[in-house]
Amino acid sequence: MSKPVLIVGGGPAGLAAAHSLATVGKKCVLVEKEDKLGGAPILSGYAKLVPTGEWAKDAIGGMVTRVADDSLVSIETGATVTSFDGTPGNFHAALSNGKTIEADAAILATGFTHFDSVNKPEWGFGTFPDVATTTQVEHMISSGQGVRGPSDGRKPKRVAILLCVGSRDRQIGREWCSKICCTVSANMAMEIREELPDCHVYIYYMDIRTFGLYETKYYWRSQEEFKVKYIKARIAEVTSDGEKLVVKGEDTLVKRPITIPFDMVVHAIGMDPNVDNPVIAETFGIDLESHGYIDVANRYGAMGHTSRPGVYVAGSATGPETIDDSIAQGHAAAMSVLSDTKEAVA
Amino acid sequence: MSKPVLIVGGGPAGLAAAHSLATVGKKCVLVEKEDKLGGAPILSGYAKLVPTGEWAKDAIGGMVTRVADDSLVSIETGATVTSFDGTPGNFHAALSNGKTIEADAAILATGFTHFDSVNKPEWGFGTFPDVATTTQVEHMISSGQGVRGPSDGRKPKRVAILLCVGSRDRQIGREWCSKICCTVSANMAMEIREELPDCHVYIYYMDIRTFGLYETKYYWRSQEEFKVKYIKARIAEVTSDGEKLVVKGEDTLVKRPITIPFDMVVHAIGMDPNVDNPVIAETFGIDLESHGYIDVANRYGAMGHTSRPGVYVAGSATGPETIDDSIAQGHAAAMSVLSDTKEAVA
Repeated sequence: MSKPVLIVGGGPAGLAAAHSLATVGKKCVLVEKEDKLGGAPILSGYAKLVPTGEWAKDAIGGMVTRVADDSLVSIETGATVTSFDGTPGNFHAALSNGKTIEADAAILATGFTHFDSVNKPEWGFGTFPDVATTTQVEHMISSGQGVRGPSDGRKPKRVAILLCVGSRDRQIGREWCSKICCTVSANMAMEIREELPDCHVYIYYMDIRTFGLYETKYYWRSQEEFKVKYIKARIAEVTSDGEKLVVKGEDTLVKRPITIPFDMVVHAIGMDPNVDNPVIAETFGIDLESHGYIDVANRYGAMGHTSRPGVYVAGSATGPETIDDSIAQGHAAAMSVLSDTKEAVA
Repeated sequence: MSKPVLIVGGGPAGLAAAHSLATVGKKCVLVEKEDKLGGAPILSGYAKLVPTGEWAKDAIGGMVTRVADDSLVSIETGATVTSFDGTPGNFHAALSNGKTIEADAAILATGFTHFDSVNKPEWGFGTFPDVATTTQVEHMISSGQGVRGPSDGRKPKRVAILLCVGSRDRQIGREWCSKICCTVSANMAMEIREELPDCHVYIYYMDIRTFGLYETKYYWRSQEEFKVKYIKARIAEVTSDGEKLVVKGEDTLVKRPITIPFDMVVHAIGMDPNVDNPVIAETFGIDLESHGYIDVANRYGAMGHTSRPGVYVAGSATGPETIDDSIAQGHAAAMSVLSDTKEAVA
């Protein structure tokens, strides 16, 4: 096998795939549209990751360093793939930086796009400065600044985290669930309570989806050890009384309107399909599924096949996904490349 | 690399790992305690799988055939590993059938144990014959018999599916969420409605956890296209009025007691840690996590490392898991074996 594998996207899935392939002596070219590797956890400055509690800059940063230091991996940052032709074992790609690549196969680890909260205007983002997003709060924590009201830099005494912002919301064309926001929000609520023990943290939810073993570690622990309060509610709007933010809605458990003041409101933003997916689909000649994520074949044959032979997909490019599962899929897609090219290692 | 990889467990994760390794020329010995391969989907006779809609006997059956036909995979069914010693690249295992195996590495794909509903006696299983489990109903569907009341073989007119039986239930020591039961139950409800259009199907739930893209395909579709009814409730007991089963509880949305008669009640049973895990942990010298699943190291380094170098884990042995993710983890663990043994394929 003489040609490298083209890997598009330098987040957890792409980094996992590149590392896997390099460890068995397979060359890779890793193309990342941003100026640095790491994907959302690094580019958006995530804090401590679910479920390990490790800092993103250490956990994913370590994956970046490992790949960057590997002589079998060529890295092209600030670049996109502009054309892709050929057949398995004989693909030709052109990059936006003018380079051309011959490749045996391609793995698309092109990730997702964070939902932009301005598309949910009645919940106050963009109108009131103390309405922030989970990614902004992650960055407050990871930067060492701590959680502070954006308007005045003060420590908030009351914080509301609103789940399903850009998820499970047909009004704005986001019918899917973003899978990990419940757990991330429970984790964030505990981090806020740890930093600011006097701060009350409320989580507004439709259904709490701390699935699997996250149930104990996040849902129960956040309530029992950290006294985070959960309110099942339909939120109508986030307004201001001039001093405090006011979350108005209906508590769906007691069937009563509730109006509660907060110093800070956090949108747990969902995972949109990568905004570039239509272009990626066109360039690579692959199908998208109905929501706009990259369509993946059933997993019983091999992992991560797209509709085009020789082109694989892994991670949140296929739909909302956890970091752990993205990494598993990255390794599995690498394995699929090896399997399909029938290289013998024995 | 001269020695094979020992893979324990012939379900989706183990089959994926064995196939992956064999495709790159690596020998495997697949040890399965039951008399045939396929794991829970085959042994329990699952019907159509989430999310592909393919029959388990075709989807997982195909994985079995592929591995069984592979000359690089030796299969030992009806056997367990009784001792395991050595170091990476030089392990020695003894099997219950008297055979011994030299192995480079081991992958534990030892799966889970279905919750036994007799441990939730107040919900009627074992007392009333028309209280069945999801696995029993899967088997009714996959066998071609169709969904029928066990007591009289008649087509039920009213079916209740109770979620979280053996999950999220501290009273009986099952604090975890079993991750996939919500989606499996929504799928089953649609299958019942498809076979028996006159049958009313109710799903009793705490939180509906049809995460990610399952939201559209299962939660919304089951309600809108198949008219499945969802009731958020705390269930007190399942009794009988002599003719019908009666589900008693509290509707937690309207805060009122509800008592509804049914012809058939289905327990959506959870995923316990494999009952053999204490023995497996002792034999392989590995750690279990707090609930009793096999403990897995963080995924940033490599996938599926246990606490013992050279011993890997994949799938629902690590906690409640979907079939797709189990397969991904099986391939990823295979990749980890290749990575760690630094075999060159280039």
